[in-house]
Amino acid sequence: MTTSTTKKSAIVLVSGGLDSATCLAIAGTQGYDCYAMSFDYGQRSTSELVAAQTVVQSAKVLEHKIIKLPIGEFGGSALTDSAIAIPEHATEGIPVTYVPARNTVFLAHALSWAEVVEASAIFIGVNALDYSGYPDCRPEYIAAFQEVIKLATKTGVEGGVINLETPLINLSKAEIIKTGMRLGVDFSATVSCYQADSEGQACGRCESCRFRRQGFDQAGVDDPTRYQ
Amino acid sequence: MTTSTTKKSAIVLVSGGLDSATCLAIAGTQGYDCYAMSFDYGQRSTSELVAAQTVVQSAKVLEHKIIKLPIGEFGGSALTDSAIAIPEHATEGIPVTYVPARNTVFLAHALSWAEVVEASAIFIGVNALDYSGYPDCRPEYIAAFQEVIKLATKTGVEGGVINLETPLINLSKAEIIKTGMRLGVDFSATVSCYQADSEGQACGRCESCRFRRQGFDQAGVDDPTRYQ
Repeated sequence: MTTSTTKKSAIVLVSGGLDSATCLAIAGTQGYDCYAMSFDYGQRSTSELVAAQTVVQSAKVLEHKIIKLPIGEFGGSALTDSAIAIPEHATEGIPVTYVPARNTVFLAHALSWAEVVEASAIFIGVNALDYSGYPDCRPEYIAAFQEVIKLATKTGVEGGVINLETPLINLSKAEIIKTGMRLGVDFSATVSCYQADSEGQACGRCESCRFRRQGFDQAGVDDPTRYQ
Repeated sequence: MTTSTTKKSAIVLVSGGLDSATCLAIAGTQGYDCYAMSFDYGQRSTSELVAAQTVVQSAKVLEHKIIKLPIGEFGGSALTDSAIAIPEHATEGIPVTYVPARNTVFLAHALSWAEVVEASAIFIGVNALDYSGYPDCRPEYIAAFQEVIKLATKTGVEGGVINLETPLINLSKAEIIKTGMRLGVDFSATVSCYQADSEGQACGRCESCRFRRQGFDQAGVDDPTRYQ
Protein backbone atom coordinates (compact mmCIF):
# COMPACT_ATOMS: atom_id res chain seq x y z
CA MET A 1 0.00 0.00 0.00
CA THR A 2 1.21 3.48 -0.74
CA THR A 3 0.77 5.91 2.06
CA SER A 4 -0.68 9.36 1.46
CA THR A 5 2.55 11.03 2.53
CA THR A 6 4.75 9.47 -0.16
CA LYS A 7 4.72 9.83 -3.93
CA LYS A 8 3.21 6.86 -5.70
CA SER A 9 5.68 4.31 -7.00
CA ALA A 10 5.65 1.49 -9.52
CA ILE A 11 7.68 -1.53 -10.52
CA VAL A 12 8.36 -1.40 -14.28
CA LEU A 13 9.59 -4.46 -16.16
CA VAL A 14 12.33 -3.40 -18.58
CA SER A 15 13.60 -5.95 -21.11
CA GLY A 16 15.78 -3.66 -23.20
CA GLY A 17 13.29 -3.70 -26.07
CA LEU A 18 11.24 -0.96 -27.63
CA ASP A 19 7.96 -1.70 -25.85
CA SER A 20 9.22 -1.73 -22.28
CA ALA A 21 11.31 1.43 -22.87
CA THR A 22 8.09 3.18 -23.92
CA CYS A 23 6.25 1.66 -20.98
CA LEU A 24 8.86 3.06 -18.56
CA ALA A 25 8.47 6.52 -20.10
CA ILE A 26 4.68 6.30 -19.78
CA ALA A 27 4.90 5.33 -16.10
CA GLY A 28 7.03 8.41 -15.54
CA THR A 29 4.51 10.71 -17.23
CA GLN A 30 1.79 9.22 -15.02
CA GLY A 31 3.63 10.49 -11.97
CA TYR A 32 5.15 7.28 -10.72
CA ASP A 33 8.56 7.02 -9.12
CA CYS A 34 9.84 3.88 -10.84
CA TYR A 35 11.72 0.79 -9.75
CA ALA A 36 13.03 -0.97 -12.85
CA MET A 37 13.31 -4.76 -13.00
CA SER A 38 15.03 -6.85 -15.67
CA PHE A 39 15.64 -10.58 -15.93
CA ASP A 40 18.68 -12.59 -16.86
CA TYR A 41 16.83 -15.82 -17.57
CA GLY A 42 19.21 -17.51 -19.95
CA GLN A 43 18.04 -15.70 -23.07
CA ARG A 44 20.33 -15.98 -26.11
CA SER A 45 20.51 -12.27 -26.57
CA THR A 46 22.23 -10.95 -23.46
CA SER A 47 22.83 -7.65 -25.25
CA GLU A 48 19.19 -6.86 -24.44
CA LEU A 49 20.25 -6.62 -20.78
CA VAL A 50 22.94 -4.11 -21.74
CA ALA A 51 20.21 -2.21 -23.59
CA ALA A 52 17.98 -2.41 -20.50
CA GLN A 53 20.71 -0.75 -18.44
CA THR A 54 21.06 2.05 -21.01
CA VAL A 55 17.29 2.57 -21.13
CA VAL A 56 17.05 2.69 -17.35
CA GLN A 57 20.01 5.08 -17.01
CA SER A 58 18.40 7.61 -19.32
CA ALA A 59 15.14 7.45 -17.34
CA LYS A 60 15.21 8.48 -13.70
CA VAL A 61 14.50 5.43 -11.57
CA LEU A 62 14.82 4.77 -7.87
CA GLU A 63 16.60 1.46 -8.39
CA HIS A 64 17.24 -1.13 -11.08
CA LYS A 65 17.40 -4.82 -10.25
CA ILE A 66 18.59 -7.41 -12.75
CA ILE A 67 17.25 -10.71 -11.47
CA LYS A 68 18.95 -13.97 -12.35
CA LEU A 69 16.45 -16.74 -13.02
CA PRO A 70 16.85 -20.45 -13.77
CA ILE A 71 13.93 -20.85 -16.19
CA GLY A 72 16.22 -20.96 -19.22
CA GLU A 73 17.73 -24.17 -17.84
CA PHE A 74 14.30 -25.82 -18.01
CA GLY A 75 14.55 -25.55 -21.82
CA GLY A 76 11.57 -25.76 -24.14
CA SER A 77 12.09 -22.49 -26.00
CA ALA A 78 14.15 -21.27 -28.94
CA LEU A 79 15.00 -18.18 -26.89
CA THR A 80 16.84 -20.19 -24.26
CA ASP A 81 17.91 -23.34 -26.08
CA SER A 82 20.43 -22.82 -28.86
CA ALA A 83 19.53 -26.24 -30.27
CA ILE A 84 16.15 -24.82 -31.37
CA ALA A 85 16.48 -22.43 -34.32
CA ILE A 86 14.88 -18.98 -34.17
CA PRO A 87 12.26 -18.94 -36.97
CA GLU A 88 12.94 -16.37 -39.68
CA HIS A 89 9.51 -16.65 -41.30
CA ALA A 90 6.01 -16.48 -39.87
CA THR A 91 4.85 -19.79 -38.36
CA GLU A 92 1.44 -21.21 -37.46
CA GLY A 93 0.22 -21.02 -33.87
CA ILE A 94 2.34 -20.07 -30.86
CA PRO A 95 5.94 -19.88 -32.07
CA VAL A 96 8.86 -21.85 -30.63
CA THR A 97 10.17 -18.59 -29.17
CA TYR A 98 7.46 -18.89 -26.49
CA VAL A 99 9.15 -19.28 -23.07
CA PRO A 100 6.94 -21.35 -20.74
CA ALA A 101 5.27 -19.17 -18.09
CA ARG A 102 7.81 -16.38 -18.60
CA ASN A 103 5.55 -13.44 -17.83
CA THR A 104 4.10 -15.26 -14.81
CA VAL A 105 7.60 -15.76 -13.41
CA PHE A 106 8.47 -12.11 -14.16
CA LEU A 107 5.25 -10.74 -12.65
CA ALA A 108 5.58 -12.91 -9.55
CA HIS A 109 8.96 -11.33 -8.82
CA ALA A 110 7.61 -7.86 -9.58
CA LEU A 111 4.75 -8.52 -7.17
CA SER A 112 7.11 -9.60 -4.40
CA TRP A 113 9.22 -6.47 -4.81
CA ALA A 114 6.11 -4.27 -5.14
CA GLU A 115 4.80 -5.41 -1.78
CA VAL A 116 8.12 -4.78 -0.05
CA VAL A 117 8.57 -1.24 -1.43
CA GLU A 118 4.83 -0.51 -1.20
CA ALA A 119 4.48 0.21 -4.90
CA SER A 120 0.90 0.71 -6.05
CA ALA A 121 1.43 -0.43 -9.64
CA ILE A 122 3.35 -2.88 -11.81
CA PHE A 123 3.89 -1.85 -15.45
CA ILE A 124 4.46 -4.48 -18.14
CA GLY A 125 4.79 -3.60 -21.81
CA VAL A 126 2.76 -6.47 -23.21
CA ASN A 127 1.02 -5.96 -26.51
CA ALA A 128 -1.74 -8.06 -28.04
CA LEU A 129 -1.84 -6.50 -31.50
CA ASP A 130 1.52 -6.63 -33.34
CA TYR A 131 2.72 -9.58 -31.29
CA SER A 132 3.77 -13.19 -31.60
CA GLY A 133 0.65 -14.76 -30.11
CA TYR A 134 2.18 -15.50 -26.72
CA PRO A 135 -0.71 -16.38 -24.38
CA ASP A 136 0.74 -14.37 -21.49
CA CYS A 137 0.45 -11.11 -23.43
CA ARG A 138 -3.36 -11.19 -23.73
CA PRO A 139 -5.83 -9.06 -21.77
CA GLU A 140 -7.52 -12.15 -20.29
CA TYR A 141 -4.19 -13.31 -18.87
CA ILE A 142 -3.52 -9.88 -17.39
CA ALA A 143 -6.98 -9.88 -15.76
CA ALA A 144 -6.30 -13.31 -14.25
CA PHE A 145 -2.95 -12.21 -12.83
CA GLN A 146 -4.58 -9.08 -11.39
CA GLU A 147 -6.90 -11.40 -9.45
CA VAL A 148 -3.86 -13.34 -8.19
CA ILE A 149 -2.32 -10.05 -7.01
CA LYS A 150 -5.45 -9.32 -4.99
CA LEU A 151 -5.71 -12.75 -3.40
CA ALA A 152 -2.03 -13.65 -2.95
CA THR A 153 -0.90 -10.68 -0.96
CA LYS A 154 -1.07 -9.10 2.47
CA THR A 155 -1.64 -5.84 0.59
CA GLY A 156 -4.73 -7.28 -1.10
CA VAL A 157 -6.13 -8.81 2.11
CA GLU A 158 -5.71 -5.49 3.90
CA GLY A 159 -7.59 -3.59 1.18
CA GLY A 160 -4.58 -2.13 -0.63
CA VAL A 161 -4.24 -2.21 -4.39
CA ILE A 162 -1.37 -3.06 -6.72
CA ASN A 163 -2.58 -2.31 -10.23
CA LEU A 164 -1.20 -4.27 -13.13
CA GLU A 165 -0.77 -1.59 -15.80
CA THR A 166 -0.49 -2.50 -19.49
CA PRO A 167 -0.56 0.82 -21.36
CA LEU A 168 0.57 -0.73 -24.67
CA ILE A 169 -1.77 -3.69 -24.78
CA ASN A 170 -4.06 -2.35 -27.50
CA LEU A 171 -1.57 -0.24 -29.47
CA SER A 172 -0.05 -1.12 -32.81
CA LYS A 173 3.74 -1.18 -32.99
CA ALA A 174 3.58 2.08 -34.99
CA GLU A 175 1.49 3.72 -32.25
CA ILE A 176 3.93 2.52 -29.58
CA ILE A 177 6.81 4.02 -31.55
CA LYS A 178 5.01 7.36 -31.99
CA THR A 179 4.20 7.44 -28.28
CA GLY A 180 7.79 6.68 -27.33
CA MET A 181 9.13 9.34 -29.72
CA ARG A 182 6.79 11.91 -28.18
CA LEU A 183 8.10 11.00 -24.72
CA GLY A 184 11.74 11.25 -25.80
CA VAL A 185 12.60 7.54 -25.78
CA ASP A 186 15.86 6.85 -27.62
CA PHE A 187 14.96 3.75 -29.60
CA SER A 188 18.50 3.44 -30.95
CA ALA A 189 19.47 2.19 -27.46
CA THR A 190 16.86 -0.58 -27.48
CA VAL A 191 17.33 -4.16 -28.67
CA SER A 192 14.32 -6.20 -29.79
CA CYS A 193 16.03 -8.92 -31.81
CA TYR A 194 15.75 -12.51 -30.54
CA GLN A 195 19.29 -13.22 -31.65
CA ALA A 196 21.10 -9.90 -31.47
CA ASP A 197 24.89 -10.19 -31.48
CA SER A 198 27.08 -9.18 -28.56
CA GLU A 199 27.16 -5.60 -29.88
CA GLY A 200 23.35 -5.44 -29.82
CA GLN A 201 23.11 -5.55 -33.61
CA ALA A 202 19.87 -7.08 -34.91
CA CYS A 203 19.43 -9.97 -37.35
CA GLY A 204 16.60 -8.20 -39.18
CA ARG A 205 14.91 -11.52 -39.90
CA CYS A 206 13.34 -12.90 -36.71
CA GLU A 207 9.71 -12.17 -35.87
CA SER A 208 10.62 -9.52 -33.32
CA CYS A 209 12.79 -7.71 -35.90
CA ARG A 210 10.02 -7.93 -38.48
CA PHE A 211 7.40 -6.39 -36.16
CA ARG A 212 9.84 -3.68 -35.17
CA ARG A 213 10.89 -2.78 -38.71
CA GLN A 214 7.27 -2.74 -39.87
CA GLY A 215 6.40 -0.48 -36.93
CA PHE A 216 8.98 2.11 -37.91
CA ASP A 217 7.80 1.88 -41.54
CA GLN A 218 4.16 2.38 -40.58
CA ALA A 219 5.00 5.19 -38.15
CA GLY A 220 6.88 6.97 -40.95
CA VAL A 221 9.96 7.20 -38.74
CA ASP A 222 13.54 6.37 -39.69
CA ASP A 223 14.47 3.00 -38.22
CA PRO A 224 17.43 3.58 -35.88
CA THR A 225 18.07 -0.14 -35.41
CA ARG A 226 21.64 -1.26 -35.93
CA TYR A 227 21.49 -4.33 -38.16
CA GLN A 228 24.22 -6.94 -38.53
CA MET B 1 0.11 -31.93 -21.96
CA THR B 2 0.69 -35.53 -21.07
CA THR B 3 0.48 -37.91 -23.94
CA SER B 4 -1.49 -41.08 -23.69
CA THR B 5 1.63 -43.18 -24.17
CA THR B 6 3.47 -41.90 -21.08
CA LYS B 7 2.66 -42.16 -17.41
CA LYS B 8 1.24 -38.99 -15.93
CA SER B 9 3.73 -36.77 -14.16
CA ALA B 10 3.56 -33.93 -11.65
CA ILE B 11 5.73 -31.20 -10.23
CA VAL B 12 5.67 -31.37 -6.41
CA LEU B 13 6.90 -28.47 -4.29
CA VAL B 14 8.98 -29.83 -1.41
CA SER B 15 10.06 -27.45 1.33
CA GLY B 16 11.50 -29.94 3.77
CA GLY B 17 8.53 -29.56 6.10
CA LEU B 18 5.90 -32.01 7.24
CA ASP B 19 3.14 -30.88 4.87
CA SER B 20 5.05 -31.06 1.60
CA ALA B 21 6.56 -34.44 2.54
CA THR B 22 3.02 -35.76 2.93
CA CYS B 23 1.97 -34.06 -0.29
CA LEU B 24 4.79 -35.80 -2.18
CA ALA B 25 3.68 -39.16 -0.78
CA ILE B 26 0.07 -38.47 -1.81
CA ALA B 27 1.11 -37.56 -5.37
CA GLY B 28 2.90 -40.90 -5.57
CA THR B 29 -0.16 -42.84 -4.42
CA GLN B 30 -2.21 -41.05 -7.07
CA GLY B 31 0.00 -42.58 -9.74
CA TYR B 32 2.12 -39.60 -10.64
CA ASP B 33 5.78 -39.78 -11.56
CA CYS B 34 7.09 -36.83 -9.58
CA TYR B 35 9.51 -34.02 -10.27
CA ALA B 36 10.43 -32.39 -6.94
CA MET B 37 11.17 -28.67 -6.70
CA SER B 38 12.60 -26.80 -3.72
CA PHE B 39 13.61 -23.17 -3.30
CA ASP B 40 16.65 -21.57 -1.78
CA TYR B 41 15.12 -18.10 -1.41
CA GLY B 42 17.22 -16.68 1.38
CA GLN B 43 15.27 -18.31 4.21
CA ARG B 44 16.94 -18.29 7.63
CA SER B 45 16.56 -21.98 8.09
CA THR B 46 18.66 -23.55 5.35
CA SER B 47 18.49 -26.87 7.17
CA GLU B 48 14.99 -27.19 5.68
CA LEU B 49 16.69 -27.64 2.28
CA VAL B 50 18.81 -30.45 3.70
CA ALA B 51 15.56 -31.96 4.98
CA ALA B 52 14.00 -31.51 1.52
CA GLN B 53 16.83 -33.54 0.00
CA THR B 54 16.34 -36.31 2.55
CA VAL B 55 12.58 -36.36 1.96
CA VAL B 56 13.04 -36.50 -1.81
CA GLN B 57 15.68 -39.23 -1.62
CA SER B 58 13.35 -41.50 0.31
CA ALA B 59 10.59 -40.99 -2.24
CA LYS B 60 11.20 -42.06 -5.83
CA VAL B 61 11.30 -38.96 -8.01
CA LEU B 62 12.39 -38.38 -11.58
CA GLU B 63 14.46 -35.31 -10.68
CA HIS B 64 14.88 -32.81 -7.87
CA LYS B 65 15.66 -29.19 -8.62
CA ILE B 66 16.69 -26.72 -5.91
CA ILE B 67 16.04 -23.29 -7.38
CA LYS B 68 17.95 -20.27 -6.14
CA LEU B 69 15.74 -17.18 -5.93
CA PRO B 70 16.47 -13.57 -5.07
CA ILE B 71 13.22 -12.75 -3.25
CA GLY B 72 14.89 -12.89 0.16
CA GLU B 73 17.03 -9.92 -0.86
CA PHE B 74 13.87 -7.84 -1.32
CA GLY B 75 13.36 -8.10 2.45
CA GLY B 76 10.05 -7.48 4.17
CA SER B 77 9.79 -10.78 6.06
CA ALA B 78 11.07 -12.21 9.32
CA LEU B 79 11.89 -15.42 7.43
CA THR B 80 14.44 -13.68 5.22
CA ASP B 81 15.54 -10.67 7.26
CA SER B 82 17.39 -11.48 10.46
CA ALA B 83 16.69 -7.95 11.72
CA ILE B 84 13.00 -8.93 12.14
CA ALA B 85 12.46 -11.29 15.07
CA ILE B 86 10.48 -14.52 14.59
CA PRO B 87 7.40 -14.20 16.85
CA GLU B 88 7.23 -16.79 19.59
CA HIS B 89 3.63 -16.09 20.54
CA ALA B 90 0.45 -15.81 18.47
CA THR B 91 0.04 -12.40 16.82
CA GLU B 92 -2.92 -10.54 15.30
CA GLY B 93 -3.45 -10.60 11.52
CA ILE B 94 -0.95 -11.86 8.97
CA PRO B 95 2.31 -12.51 10.83
CA VAL B 96 5.68 -10.94 9.98
CA THR B 97 6.81 -14.36 8.77
CA TYR B 98 4.72 -13.74 5.63
CA VAL B 99 7.06 -13.62 2.60
CA PRO B 100 5.61 -11.32 -0.09
CA ALA B 101 4.22 -13.30 -3.03
CA ARG B 102 6.22 -16.38 -2.09
CA ASN B 103 3.80 -19.02 -3.30
CA THR B 104 3.19 -17.07 -6.53
CA VAL B 105 6.92 -17.04 -7.23
CA PHE B 106 7.17 -20.75 -6.38
CA LEU B 107 4.15 -21.73 -8.48
CA ALA B 108 5.32 -19.64 -11.45
CA HIS B 109 8.55 -21.66 -11.54
CA ALA B 110 6.66 -24.91 -11.10
CA LEU B 111 4.41 -23.92 -13.99
CA SER B 112 7.35 -23.18 -16.26
CA TRP B 113 8.94 -26.55 -15.49
CA ALA B 114 5.57 -28.34 -15.78
CA GLU B 115 5.08 -27.07 -19.32
CA VAL B 116 8.56 -28.15 -20.38
CA VAL B 117 8.28 -31.70 -19.00
CA GLU B 118 4.59 -31.93 -19.94
CA ALA B 119 3.45 -32.56 -16.38
CA SER B 120 -0.30 -32.58 -15.93
CA ALA B 121 -0.33 -31.48 -12.30
CA ILE B 122 1.44 -29.29 -9.77
CA PHE B 123 1.17 -30.33 -6.11
CA ILE B 124 1.54 -27.78 -3.33
CA GLY B 125 1.04 -28.63 0.34
CA VAL B 126 -0.83 -25.50 1.36
CA ASN B 127 -3.20 -25.75 4.26
CA ALA B 128 -5.91 -23.30 5.25
CA LEU B 129 -6.86 -24.81 8.61
CA ASP B 130 -3.93 -25.09 11.05
CA TYR B 131 -2.00 -22.34 9.30
CA SER B 132 -0.56 -18.88 9.85
CA GLY B 133 -3.12 -16.94 7.83
CA TYR B 134 -0.89 -16.43 4.81
CA PRO B 135 -3.15 -15.22 1.98
CA ASP B 136 -1.45 -17.43 -0.61
CA CYS B 137 -2.52 -20.61 1.20
CA ARG B 138 -6.27 -20.03 0.79
CA PRO B 139 -8.59 -21.86 -1.64
CA GLU B 140 -9.56 -18.60 -3.38
CA TYR B 141 -5.90 -17.88 -4.12
CA ILE B 142 -5.41 -21.40 -5.50
CA ALA B 143 -8.46 -20.97 -7.76
CA ALA B 144 -7.06 -17.67 -9.07
CA PHE B 145 -3.69 -19.23 -9.83
CA GLN B 146 -5.42 -22.13 -11.60
CA GLU B 147 -6.99 -19.56 -13.92
CA VAL B 148 -3.56 -18.05 -14.55
CA ILE B 149 -2.26 -21.52 -15.47
CA LYS B 150 -5.02 -21.86 -18.05
CA LEU B 151 -4.52 -18.44 -19.62
CA ALA B 152 -0.74 -18.02 -19.35
CA THR B 153 0.36 -21.14 -21.12
CA LYS B 154 0.64 -22.72 -24.55
CA THR B 155 -0.69 -25.85 -22.84
CA GLY B 156 -3.84 -24.00 -21.76
CA VAL B 157 -4.42 -22.35 -25.14
CA GLU B 158 -4.08 -25.71 -26.86
CA GLY B 159 -6.66 -27.32 -24.57
CA GLY B 160 -4.27 -29.13 -22.26
CA VAL B 161 -4.63 -29.07 -18.50
CA ILE B 162 -2.16 -28.57 -15.66
CA ASN B 163 -4.10 -29.12 -12.45
CA LEU B 164 -3.05 -27.31 -9.32
CA GLU B 165 -3.47 -29.99 -6.64
CA THR B 166 -3.78 -29.07 -2.96
CA PRO B 167 -4.63 -32.35 -1.18
CA LEU B 168 -3.97 -30.91 2.31
CA ILE B 169 -5.89 -27.67 2.00
CA ASN B 170 -8.81 -28.68 4.22
CA LEU B 171 -7.02 -31.06 6.58
CA SER B 172 -6.06 -30.34 10.17
CA LYS B 173 -2.39 -30.78 11.06
CA ALA B 174 -3.34 -33.97 12.95
CA GLU B 175 -5.07 -35.35 9.85
CA ILE B 176 -2.03 -34.51 7.71
CA ILE B 177 0.20 -36.36 10.18
CA LYS B 178 -2.06 -39.41 10.21
CA THR B 179 -2.15 -39.44 6.41
CA GLY B 180 1.62 -39.14 6.18
CA MET B 181 2.14 -41.94 8.73
CA ARG B 182 -0.19 -44.20 6.76
CA LEU B 183 1.87 -43.51 3.63
CA GLY B 184 5.18 -44.21 5.37
CA VAL B 185 6.48 -40.64 5.55
CA ASP B 186 9.40 -40.36 7.98
CA PHE B 187 8.55 -37.14 9.80
CA SER B 188 11.78 -37.27 11.80
CA ALA B 189 13.53 -36.20 8.60
CA THR B 190 11.34 -33.11 8.13
CA VAL B 191 12.04 -29.60 9.44
CA SER B 192 9.16 -27.19 10.01
CA CYS B 193 10.80 -24.67 12.35
CA TYR B 194 11.21 -21.10 11.07
CA GLN B 195 14.53 -20.83 12.86
CA ALA B 196 15.91 -24.36 12.97
CA ASP B 197 19.62 -24.55 13.69
CA SER B 198 22.18 -25.86 11.24
CA GLU B 199 21.55 -29.41 12.50
CA GLY B 200 17.84 -29.08 11.73
CA GLN B 201 16.91 -28.90 15.42
CA ALA B 202 13.70 -26.96 16.08
CA CYS B 203 13.18 -24.03 18.45
CA GLY B 204 9.84 -25.38 19.69
CA ARG B 205 8.47 -21.85 20.12
CA CYS B 206 7.73 -20.33 16.69
CA GLU B 207 4.26 -20.61 15.18
CA SER B 208 5.30 -23.37 12.81
CA CYS B 209 6.70 -25.41 15.72
CA ARG B 210 3.53 -24.80 17.74
CA PHE B 211 1.23 -26.04 14.94
CA ARG B 212 3.46 -29.05 14.41
CA ARG B 213 3.69 -30.04 18.05
CA GLN B 214 -0.07 -29.61 18.50
CA GLY B 215 -0.63 -31.75 15.41
CA PHE B 216 1.37 -34.66 16.85
CA ASP B 217 -0.45 -34.22 20.18
CA GLN B 218 -3.88 -34.28 18.55
CA ALA B 219 -2.95 -37.20 16.29
CA GLY B 220 -1.87 -39.15 19.36
CA VAL B 221 1.50 -39.82 17.79
CA ASP B 222 4.92 -39.44 19.40
CA ASP B 223 6.53 -36.22 18.17
CA PRO B 224 9.78 -37.22 16.43
CA THR B 225 10.97 -33.61 16.14
CA ARG B 226 14.49 -32.95 17.35
CA TYR B 227 14.31 -29.88 19.56
CA GLN B 228 17.23 -27.63 20.48
